Amino acid sequence: MKQHSLMIDCPDHKGLVHHITGVLFDLGLNVTQNDEFVSEDGRFFMRTEFEGEVNEEMLTTEMLKVLPEQDSRLRLNPKKNKNIVVLATKEHHCLADLLVRYSFDELNANILAVISNYNQLQSLVSRFGIPFHYISHDDQTREQHEEAIFRAIDIYQPDYLVLAKYMRVLTPAFVNRYQHRIINIHHSFLPAFVGANPYKQAYERGVKIIGATAHFVNNDLDEGPIIAQSIKNIDHRYSAKDMAVAGRDIEKIVLSQALQLVFQDRVFINGNRTIIF
Amino acid sequence: MKQHSLMIDCPDHKGLVHHITGVLFDLGLNVTQNDEFVSEDGRFFMRTEFEGEVNEEMLTTEMLKVLPEQDSRLRLNPKKNKNIVVLATKEHHCLADLLVRYSFDELNANILAVISNYNQLQSLVSRFGIPFHYISHDDQTREQHEEAIFRAIDIYQPDYLVLAKYMRVLTPAFVNRYQHRIINIHHSFLPAFVGANPYKQAYERGVKIIGATAHFVNNDLDEGPIIAQSIKNIDHRYSAKDMAVAGRDIEKIVLSQALQLVFQDRVFINGNRTIIF
Amino acid sequence: MKQHSLMIDCPDHKGLVHHITGVLFDLGLNVTQNDEFVSEDGRFFMRTEFEGEVNEEMLTTEMLKVLPEQDSRLRLNPKKNKNIVVLATKEHHCLADLLVRYSFDELNANILAVISNYNQLQSLVSRFGIPFHYISHDDQTREQHEEAIFRAIDIYQPDYLVLAKYMRVLTPAFVNRYQHRIINIHHSFLPAFVGANPYKQAYERGVKIIGATAHFVNNDLDEGPIIAQSIKNIDHRYSAKDMAVAGRDIEKIVLSQALQLVFQDRVFINGNRTIIF
Amino acid sequence: MKQHSLMIDCPDHKGLVHHITGVLFDLGLNVTQNDEFVSEDGRFFMRTEFEGEVNEEMLTTEMLKVLPEQDSRLRLNPKKNKNIVVLATKEHHCLADLLVRYSFDELNANILAVISNYNQLQSLVSRFGIPFHYISHDDQTREQHEEAIFRAIDIYQPDYLVLAKYMRVLTPAFVNRYQHRIINIHHSFLPAFVGANPYKQAYERGVKIIGATAHFVNNDLDEGPIIAQSIKNIDHRYSAKDMAVAGRDIEKIVLSQALQLVFQDRVFINGNRTIIF
Repeated sequence: MKQHSLMIDCPDHKGLVHHITGVLFDLGLNVTQNDEFVSEDGRFFMRTEFEGEVNEEMLTTEMLKVLPEQDSRLRLNPKKNKNIVVLATKEHHCLADLLVRYSFDELNANILAVISNYNQLQSLVSRFGIPFHYISHDDQTREQHEEAIFRAIDIYQPDYLVLAKYMRVLTPAFVNRYQHRIINIHHSFLPAFVGANPYKQAYERGVKIIGATAHFVNNDLDEGPIIAQSIKNIDHRYSAKDMAVAGRDIEKIVLSQALQLVFQDRVFINGNRTIIF
Repeated sequence: MKQHSLMIDCPDHKGLVHHITGVLFDLGLNVTQNDEFVSEDGRFFMRTEFEGEVNEEMLTTEMLKVLPEQDSRLRLNPKKNKNIVVLATKEHHCLADLLVRYSFDELNANILAVISNYNQLQSLVSRFGIPFHYISHDDQTREQHEEAIFRAIDIYQPDYLVLAKYMRVLTPAFVNRYQHRIINIHHSFLPAFVGANPYKQAYERGVKIIGATAHFVNNDLDEGPIIAQSIKNIDHRYSAKDMAVAGRDIEKIVLSQALQLVFQDRVFINGNRTIIF
Repeated sequence: MKQHSLMIDCPDHKGLVHHITGVLFDLGLNVTQNDEFVSEDGRFFMRTEFEGEVNEEMLTTEMLKVLPEQDSRLRLNPKKNKNIVVLATKEHHCLADLLVRYSFDELNANILAVISNYNQLQSLVSRFGIPFHYISHDDQTREQHEEAIFRAIDIYQPDYLVLAKYMRVLTPAFVNRYQHRIINIHHSFLPAFVGANPYKQAYERGVKIIGATAHFVNNDLDEGPIIAQSIKNIDHRYSAKDMAVAGRDIEKIVLSQALQLVFQDRVFINGNRTIIF
Repeated sequence: MKQHSLMIDCPDHKGLVHHITGVLFDLGLNVTQNDEFVSEDGRFFMRTEFEGEVNEEMLTTEMLKVLPEQDSRLRLNPKKNKNIVVLATKEHHCLADLLVRYSFDELNANILAVISNYNQLQSLVSRFGIPFHYISHDDQTREQHEEAIFRAIDIYQPDYLVLAKYMRVLTPAFVNRYQHRIINIHHSFLPAFVGANPYKQAYERGVKIIGATAHFVNNDLDEGPIIAQSIKNIDHRYSAKDMAVAGRDIEKIVLSQALQLVFQDRVFINGNRTIIF
């Protein structure tokens, strides 16, 4: 049986749930899950999973009739794997976790290619039979380097870009091209320790807990909407290096879990916040 | 503005959300939160918060028209404090936490009285100006003792009984009298270490994590529907006594959090499982 | 049997453990626990618990013979309750937790008095028979206000000051007077969200985890050595107010746990970091 | 510089730390970390890391002079990778995590071979260039099957066997042959839900937290000394299958972390408990 999820967000008003579910009912669709939320700033979010044959055009047309005319968004997502390109640098742990999940079809996504500004991870990627593009930033301006990356990405036309410990700052041009479609893992419990060397910062601050944060990338470095965070208790015996090692386990799990949520079409973005069903 | 929550559970069928929200819409009620869930065994659960003047009889009548005739349950709860009686034995930590929250009106409940089979906690309770009933079990059969407790409880006609480290096993007669209205805190991560001395058991088993469980009481000791659980990491340096001390912090927080959920009418019971919105 | 803990920190060199334990062995003391740590900057920390009659002067004299002449510190602590004064403002949750623990002798400390710049908590404190000093900051300069607080504190000559949600920034003069003896609970997962309204900041940043931090106070606001931190997972349904409510449970537990560590003489300070045994 | 760890456990008596560190001091060894613990049943555990050239025979001889004659154990471990053989069945997540860590030399161990009673994981293992032995249990008695496994293991003479979701119960003969050298990951928060289908059991019990446990294997199924445990919060929306999926992330991290501890010679076994430094 075909499965879809419907994601609606619009200004809240009375009766929205009733009217939206009415459209689905009239079309004879079998709702299997339904979640709603109204944000403090008065925006309505609703995600519905349903089964059955659906005429997408008719559903959209009927649904738009019951939504506010202004500022309503509607996405109808057939349940299928997303296409992604992964960017990495030298660290393998997040990338390897994605490759393993993909190779056993657990990622809800197809990894079309891996792009890196170093070639250390080529051997790992090749084991999984996935194209690896080594695009060095040596002797390149940031713009030239990104242009080369764009050309590689364009071959694949991915739905999402995943930064699996990609250690280069993206230009606004890059970010805008994939607005709300770039997911990053940051090796700190954001907003603590933004910027470089978060584990060194964490060590120097003497924290008792370290963490990692998966988030959408926007133009403010380390400032995009947070999807998932997780932590680990540490103590004085952890050096900055020990923290980095311990942090890898958090990073890879948090990134994979955030990607699952995004790829299953469970994540709304509302300004700098996410609503996740 | 008056606030209510409506809790419905019934056999699932197509269009339930649409029809239920239709009744609320027709009555002009302003829904502020809405949650639904369909269990694997095909039962539909919905909880709706709404604001506005409501004719309870009319709402119930109209709602029953759209629910399945068989096996539907509907509870309309005005937002107000529940009335509770707390049973304790000698340990103070859970009871004190409830007393403090109550005294600052944070419990969503009124503590009408505390009953104990020992008198150690009398001084604590008296500080909060709450009646304390010392009902010793000495020289009493279990039935006689429970009968005396019933007489004390009956004075207060509470909505719920809270076992805040009450260390006596209840008879089925007792449990049945307050079916789904007795909440207990068990000092283990159930179902591990049921029965007596769970921290001693935990020590001997050499676990690396201890926990606590708040649950409804049913006729099988330590077997009722779980409302909330929480844990704490420990290591080999913890003796059974150290675990018990560390466990107190978990117990009191878990019990209070579970009670908040119950007293805010957020908890459904489905067989031995809870659905919590 | 008398119990002591010995806390030594000094520049590291070979054989320290051997020589230190030699002094204890020669004095016939029975070591029940022993912990050492050498920091990355080459400082040695050792804490030893022992039982038996001890001539404090002789132990100190002998111990100093085996420690480096420069920059060694030695504290010999008989096991006994510390004396503390608690400062609070309007929120009760941390203060109440301390009062309850104290009243059942679980705090390893005697609460000699509570000082507040508001009088909301007077009723709570009076229930536990503890002096309450209401010292308003109205119409006072910061210095005048602190001077009045000092006069109140000086009556009690406490070992430690505990800021249990005391919402005033302390002057350097105040902090210096109780160097390493003031413990604060900060309602965020430091160093995230320093300053005012951390839960509002956390809400606006859209974090998925909130936390609290107990730390020594130094001259840089929210910057002193961290003793303990804890967290709670949240989601988009939490308003800033909901976060604040949920945060209270974390704050009170973290503060009490940090105080236990300090009052049991388990905490060393090394620059901006703590070593905790 | 050569690194060793020394692990001593023996009956406790006064002066042990002094005498043991005296031997190391006299041999001119540079102690970089030192941990001791005395269990409630009066056993002394000490682990020391040191750098420098060491005459192993002399160190052992001298050390035995200061340890109790009866019931003392001493292990001197040069810092090096352990040799291991991994047993698996059909699930890949734990095995893949170990393979990735091994391939980047992060496991403190060499994976010499993988043995499975199914062939589903052959492709994964072959990507990492490691021998894979498919030893089906079809048409075999338990003893015949284990005999075939033994023959495969004997080729490699491993230090440890790792059961990475190996779903067969081992005979006492098997366990005895690798006494204290078999590590298993159990997909529950032991001792809850021993036996088959723990996630189904967890679902039916309606728990709010699931977990995983890495432990040494002894003759009582699921009863050996626990090395590490971890948990994840869940709610009513998790089916038994959802729990199993979520549980995989816990299982693989817990197993890897437990193995790190064992392979770095940080784990003592004391009856059914572990002491971990």
